[in-house]
Amino acid sequence: MIFSSKLIENAVEQFSKLPGIGRKTALRMVLHLLKTEKEKVTAFTDAISKMSSEIVFCKKCHNVSDGVLCSICANTARQQQQLCVVENLRDVIAIESTQQYHGLYHILGGVLSPLDGVGPDQLNIATLLRRVEADAVEEIIMALSPNIEGDTTVYYIAKQLQNHPVKITTIARGIAFGGELEYADEMTLARSIAKRLPVENYVSVSTK
Amino acid sequence: MIFSSKLIENAVEQFSKLPGIGRKTALRMVLHLLKTEKEKVTAFTDAISKMSSEIVFCKKCHNVSDGVLCSICANTARQQQQLCVVENLRDVIAIESTQQYHGLYHILGGVLSPLDGVGPDQLNIATLLRRVEADAVEEIIMALSPNIEGDTTVYYIAKQLQNHPVKITTIARGIAFGGELEYADEMTLARSIAKRLPVENYVSVSTK
Repeated sequence: MIFSSKLIENAVEQFSKLPGIGRKTALRMVLHLLKTEKEKVTAFTDAISKMSSEIVFCKKCHNVSDGVLCSICANTARQQQQLCVVENLRDVIAIESTQQYHGLYHILGGVLSPLDGVGPDQLNIATLLRRVEADAVEEIIMALSPNIEGDTTVYYIAKQLQNHPVKITTIARGIAFGGELEYADEMTLARSIAKRLPVENYVSVSTK
Repeated sequence: MIFSSKLIENAVEQFSKLPGIGRKTALRMVLHLLKTEKEKVTAFTDAISKMSSEIVFCKKCHNVSDGVLCSICANTARQQQQLCVVENLRDVIAIESTQQYHGLYHILGGVLSPLDGVGPDQLNIATLLRRVEADAVEEIIMALSPNIEGDTTVYYIAKQLQNHPVKITTIARGIAFGGELEYADEMTLARSIAKRLPVENYVSVSTK
């Protein structure tokens, strides 16, 4: 692509560094911003600069935060004795969006994966163990990816806490709501039969 | 989507205003920028701010420009007596990328469309007519969209210049290179038969 303006070329170049954005899409965005009023473009760049320079990580749960504690840890109305352990920020946003969980979080920053060089020291496991101790946590809900790495991480953390009275649970796995049995993979289906629930436990969860 | 940080929320909000970007994609971009070094984020926002505040439009052809004249109009090596009339910047980029055209451009800013309230006064037609007069233009190549609005615009401009010796041409329409005859629409196919060329005119164009 040949541009007659260096300014446009630079902007397209920068946009195309974003994930999933090729040069054609980048050009489309740049031409959109070109037609946008200057104040709105400034609002756009300001929001990004501000986020990049001012964001910090919560001292407690490693979530992104506007202050020392994130808004979830700072909210005293939430159950302080319940921790949901997740891999990353995206998982926190997904669980928060259900509006069904009222405890706190702990972001590991990934899962154990020796092949990729990710050991316990690369994850926020030490701070989790200290937190369980210091805050008298009653329950840890492990909400990690349902794969070998995730299961290994659950097992490792459970082992570290085996002499501690904290209750460790994992999120339920099974057939997704609205999912068709015939399209479920064999492992999920086999597990959901093995871990079947009595009908009185079949609680319907409403999304507000 | 519920965010624990106002800074992230604002950035996602701003990104999702871009064309074709939903909140999920916006979040993906924000999380990418969050992991990016601060200097690179600054380079990104600077490129956009600079483009938005410093870009001007070429006095001659209405192309985006870094100065009074765009780099194409300022290039004296190009054929000054040949103008390619296009709808917008995107068309200039497309034609420039072929590296086969060595004349100048004139950006109309759209095509005549009375139903949408676009008349001759809304387009850069007056400046085109003045340019043809002042610069002793020998040929105008109309490279507008092949539809009724585009054809109307070609007809209107040709009518305005009927007493002027300038040669007016339109880009060739027909079966695209590599296109299959059976998938071509009837109108294109019918036109390409009616406007058939003798084989000696069948020039092969190489893209450098």
